[in-house]
Amino acid sequence: METILKNDLILRAARGENIERYPVWLMRQAGRILPEYRAVRSSLSGFKELVETPKYAAEVTIQPVDILGVDAAIIFSDILVVPEAMGLEYQMIEQKGPWFEKTIKSEADLHLAEVDFDIEDRLGYVLEAIKLTNKELNGRVPLIGFAGAPWTIFCYMVEGKGSKTFSESRKMLYTNPTLSHQLLDRITNVTIKYLKAQIKAGAHMLQLFDSWAGILGTDQYREFSLKYIQKIADAINEVPLTIFSKGAINSLEEIALSKCNTIGLDWNMDIAEFRSKIGETRTIQGNLDPCALYSTHTQIESLTNNLLDSFTSKRHIVNLGHGVYPDVDPDKVKTFINTVKQYNIKY
Amino acid sequence: METILKNDLILRAARGENIERYPVWLMRQAGRILPEYRAVRSSLSGFKELVETPKYAAEVTIQPVDILGVDAAIIFSDILVVPEAMGLEYQMIEQKGPWFEKTIKSEADLHLAEVDFDIEDRLGYVLEAIKLTNKELNGRVPLIGFAGAPWTIFCYMVEGKGSKTFSESRKMLYTNPTLSHQLLDRITNVTIKYLKAQIKAGAHMLQLFDSWAGILGTDQYREFSLKYIQKIADAINEVPLTIFSKGAINSLEEIALSKCNTIGLDWNMDIAEFRSKIGETRTIQGNLDPCALYSTHTQIESLTNNLLDSFTSKRHIVNLGHGVYPDVDPDKVKTFINTVKQYNIKY
Repeated sequence: METILKNDLILRAARGENIERYPVWLMRQAGRILPEYRAVRSSLSGFKELVETPKYAAEVTIQPVDILGVDAAIIFSDILVVPEAMGLEYQMIEQKGPWFEKTIKSEADLHLAEVDFDIEDRLGYVLEAIKLTNKELNGRVPLIGFAGAPWTIFCYMVEGKGSKTFSESRKMLYTNPTLSHQLLDRITNVTIKYLKAQIKAGAHMLQLFDSWAGILGTDQYREFSLKYIQKIADAINEVPLTIFSKGAINSLEEIALSKCNTIGLDWNMDIAEFRSKIGETRTIQGNLDPCALYSTHTQIESLTNNLLDSFTSKRHIVNLGHGVYPDVDPDKVKTFINTVKQYNIKY
Repeated sequence: METILKNDLILRAARGENIERYPVWLMRQAGRILPEYRAVRSSLSGFKELVETPKYAAEVTIQPVDILGVDAAIIFSDILVVPEAMGLEYQMIEQKGPWFEKTIKSEADLHLAEVDFDIEDRLGYVLEAIKLTNKELNGRVPLIGFAGAPWTIFCYMVEGKGSKTFSESRKMLYTNPTLSHQLLDRITNVTIKYLKAQIKAGAHMLQLFDSWAGILGTDQYREFSLKYIQKIADAINEVPLTIFSKGAINSLEEIALSKCNTIGLDWNMDIAEFRSKIGETRTIQGNLDPCALYSTHTQIESLTNNLLDSFTSKRHIVNLGHGVYPDVDPDKVKTFINTVKQYNIKY
């Protein structure tokens, strides 16, 4: 039996229904900004133990709901659980980021990216964390599930680590487009199964993160990223879907044609301009500069109100334009959230 | 007595004068792609010895003219020589990038960024390299001088190293805009003196690199970057000036209002769209995706011809949309250059 949600504001905003006020949450809200998170994290062997232990993942997922008062929880996990489930194990190296021992460089490596496996078997820990979180949230707010967009996951599977240019991954688009599409297809198939499993486990809403969208020109973005995002969007009908393609400024209108509910904007994108182009067809999520939270409380109130004043529609979910930076004072985050909550919608 | 240039194609293209064919050069053309460069580099103690020794800097500056057949040389140096001359010494750490021991974090640090010093005294090695290069080039092609745009230099002086988000630097724009402007002013004043000295030493053309333009939203870019670029553009009248603001997609039209000759576009920017907005007022430089040079020779010819076919004007300087990647085969670079040279302008 499904628990009835006491606060379904973000779901109504995503569907373009009536809302009393704008809903607000933060990308990376469960994480290093909270001392309560750091306490849990430091009691464990590392980041991966936290991701892989449903009890702890649920605990840090709920922390920002209790402490910050956000209108949604987002399951604590990592986009890299998908390539790992496909067969490429990763390590999270402190101060450096992810590192994969095996990578996909040629056709001979393609078999390393498995596609026919049981999601419950390899990613059951995420599904368990979703169930546990919902049980403990008891309907206080909706729970957001997520995955990386295929292009972004492709970058890690080819490159094996973070990069400024991801030139190895972009190189493959030129030197071996066939292999590129084969790998992107595999990632897409697994991602659809994984997101469907998240919905079944209880995710009320989903977000696709295309963190490296901005390194592709418009044509390559269309062929190697958006095409696969659209396949996923076509397959997900049960819950609202948000697409966040960081840096894809030139492709926003095309992204908005996908069968999704919400488009996330980064802090360099112009909400008013985008709204004028897409009208009321989609909800817009974002996009305060995460660095604005380094300002004084008074400045944060003013910057947040300016952002909300720029809206000309109800179809908004308020968020930062990027994940909250780890050294931001949680009290500053509260000021941002409370300012949004106190704001009177004009429409 | 000034040497007469045998090939002044790029200068004519920058000024919007008549040209027989499009001029072509590559950002980072003097560097790791050439075995001849690596031979010089490995005979020295490190990157900085190469930058600071005019004889070697001149040698590697001329290599791509001899080997690749580009239409311009660009002096081998680094944008970080400016913060170093101002008092913040840097180290170039292999595989990691630049590192500064001292950084500017508060008003108390501002005195570390000196402004009243003699350019010849602290940057004479660059000026000497320019003179030596021109002497050895003997008018074969023009020599491009350069500097970092103040915002990009500011990022290194505040952050002390590279960063994905440059959140320390962007934080200061919110927490201490006064200090930010003071530091940007100092960098701007030194940069103008430095560029004027480069002209006096023999630079035929100048380029400003705003490598981190893309991490600022439009309003902050205008206030903290473009304002200072414009001060520099206003002060430089002797030779053509190119502005390359990587990632500043939303600000291109504003940048084009600066008193410059040429706007460089990165590979994600749309030349046809930009041309339709600015008309014939400025020369456009760029913008083949550097990863295109990983393709086959036939594909490179075709991708290059497609790029040139998209031009609707003579006002173009052909280049990549970013520095050439170090593992690109020099023969592929030659194919790119030769394709441009063989192309018949339609206008």
